[in-house]
Amino acid sequence: MATTTADTDAMRRAITLAARALGATSPNPVVGCVILDAAGELAGEGHHQRAGGPHAEIHALREAGDRAAGGTAYVTLEPCNHTGRTGPCAQALIKAGVARVVFAVGDPNPQATGGADTLRAASVRVERGLLAEEAEAGNAAWLTSVRLGRPYVLWKYAATLDGRIAAADATSRWITSAESRADVHRLRAEADAVVVGSGTVRADDPHLAVRDIAGAVQPLRVVVDTGATAVRPGARVLDGAAPTLIAVAEDADTTHLKAAGPGGEPVDVARLPRAGRGLSVPALLADLHARGVRSVLLEGGPTLAGAFVAAGAVDKVVGYLAPVLLGAGPAALGDAGITTLARALRLRMTETVRVGPDLRVTATPERTTTARGYEPATPVSTASAVATPKER
Amino acid sequence: MATTTADTDAMRRAITLAARALGATSPNPVVGCVILDAAGELAGEGHHQRAGGPHAEIHALREAGDRAAGGTAYVTLEPCNHTGRTGPCAQALIKAGVARVVFAVGDPNPQATGGADTLRAASVRVERGLLAEEAEAGNAAWLTSVRLGRPYVLWKYAATLDGRIAAADATSRWITSAESRADVHRLRAEADAVVVGSGTVRADDPHLAVRDIAGAVQPLRVVVDTGATAVRPGARVLDGAAPTLIAVAEDADTTHLKAAGPGGEPVDVARLPRAGRGLSVPALLADLHARGVRSVLLEGGPTLAGAFVAAGAVDKVVGYLAPVLLGAGPAALGDAGITTLARALRLRMTETVRVGPDLRVTATPERTTTARGYEPATPVSTASAVATPKER
Repeated sequence: MATTTADTDAMRRAITLAARALGATSPNPVVGCVILDAAGELAGEGHHQRAGGPHAEIHALREAGDRAAGGTAYVTLEPCNHTGRTGPCAQALIKAGVARVVFAVGDPNPQATGGADTLRAASVRVERGLLAEEAEAGNAAWLTSVRLGRPYVLWKYAATLDGRIAAADATSRWITSAESRADVHRLRAEADAVVVGSGTVRADDPHLAVRDIAGAVQPLRVVVDTGATAVRPGARVLDGAAPTLIAVAEDADTTHLKAAGPGGEPVDVARLPRAGRGLSVPALLADLHARGVRSVLLEGGPTLAGAFVAAGAVDKVVGYLAPVLLGAGPAALGDAGITTLARALRLRMTETVRVGPDLRVTATPERTTTARGYEPATPVSTASAVATPKER
Repeated sequence: MATTTADTDAMRRAITLAARALGATSPNPVVGCVILDAAGELAGEGHHQRAGGPHAEIHALREAGDRAAGGTAYVTLEPCNHTGRTGPCAQALIKAGVARVVFAVGDPNPQATGGADTLRAASVRVERGLLAEEAEAGNAAWLTSVRLGRPYVLWKYAATLDGRIAAADATSRWITSAESRADVHRLRAEADAVVVGSGTVRADDPHLAVRDIAGAVQPLRVVVDTGATAVRPGARVLDGAAPTLIAVAEDADTTHLKAAGPGGEPVDVARLPRAGRGLSVPALLADLHARGVRSVLLEGGPTLAGAFVAAGAVDKVVGYLAPVLLGAGPAALGDAGITTLARALRLRMTETVRVGPDLRVTATPERTTTARGYEPATPVSTASAVATPKER
């Protein structure tokens, strides 16, 4: 069946709608849906807004009403086939009399898959793959987390042109511009968790919550504080602006965190096995995955970023490069166990864009993180990798 | 007088012609000229090709012949007024009967200036400033050298996204791509001299000549070898592919260079005062300026680049950033005497462009190098700054 411009336009709109909820739907994917009536006119549209809420198809069907009958539904992900909190979407589309369903990406979740078959069995015309690449990019975090059984990790850094994140005397405010810092808040809003190390907490006492983005869902703020010595009561990261988790070694003394929460309540603590001078990155990611975290924004510093790179657990890199030269000071990336050029982590630049006076560079590893031998904390079978409830 | 599209097109063509000779005209500027006849048709064009050769106007007048009479000449730089090796261009334009002369940038050289006045006195219509900014950018190296009395310095580096120029074990071939390396040969061809430090010679034994660019004038290869211990007989930089100069401390023993030239002849040596652990950058630049060098491509390494930045002697930065992460290894820029962020060298990015898989970033200091307090080796008065013979 030939794809028309109307088909492409409708699917692109569905992808745009899906992106609105980035950071708000975990552990579910983002999904968008557009319904055209039998005459090809827009009848309804919607997107999955939060876990437990209606799926995108349900929003769009409600808006379309009777006009869905004989029409076409465009969905960024294969309609689900299972009865979760909101009922299977395949049945809802059939009941509404939709004549044709076009979806971009198949559902990798065995609990939910089969929607296409159900639709076909009810004589609905089903097409798959329209704008699949764009739709996959929009759902990269969720798809990666399903495939690897751990959260998707985006490492963000801000450095001078010569790769420094601070001057020799540790001054670092502000290397990058206000525009770049605002852009970082968008990244935080799109992530389920923001992760920093103890060095960053000691140097900057960061807040890590999202500011100035209307309707943003606050990410879980995570500090990797192996010895439980960096985050002290009164730290900005312990306020009530967003949830907080302190990851510490199994033997760390966390007495000082027992009443350091915003209202004097205990701070959430995750006790994890040590690895090298820090914590096991796979164990940290497994713990976050179990908490429903599907995407992590790793905000550094260099030591923690080095540990993530060494663990093969960086899926995307976003660097903000300021037109500044220092000639001294700490580098953006610390020891990642790479001693010779042949073992360097090679990436592919996917985007370079000016942000105010700075430059934002986005890159992804040439090889997938699995190919680099990512070792989960507990071996994850295909079944357990997708065993999270899919309540999108 | 209103500027027409034909005027702009002709001047833009003149600027393009001028750029053809970048790296070949020192100590003169690059200049292009286009002549339209009285009917506005292209009658002749030309550019200054090498010092001592005819000026751009003379090439264009020869091509235009009788059609120059009553026509317009477009020149990127004010026509000269003095009798050098090729006679004053202002007189040649008057003799040919040109009715109107449009030039982009005034000649800052008091020996040559006055061409516009001479033309006006002969009733030629003279206009100044068309596309001045573009023409100035095309002549940035020469104009800077006239203003500061030292060569223009472009610092080029090639690094990973995390700012490393080599891995921890010193392996550095190849961080950037073949496309980026070819681009560097273009930069070398456009420069009068290529400068490296002793560390680069020890690590890489570089050749520093231009390869694979037809008609390129080879730059002077300069090694800053303070103790005269890095460049040994047989070094690639000592072959016959291009001229070579070794800059050493006044007290250095250069016996080993006495017969180390390509045919067993002595290698050129410049003896300069020490500064810190190296040589005085202003003294080096003054020495190169006296040799007719108007533009320098500084190819590193980090120690020498740090000394140039510290001396306020970097006019443009071109960084080739490879999509690679190392987490260890030397940084692109070494100690430049900057200890705190408030004293960082702030730049403005003027261009970012993909070169193969890499990214090329071009930036210029926010403040002029003079404002940063560049201290020439010998105080340069306005008069002596322009005392170089202008034989363009």
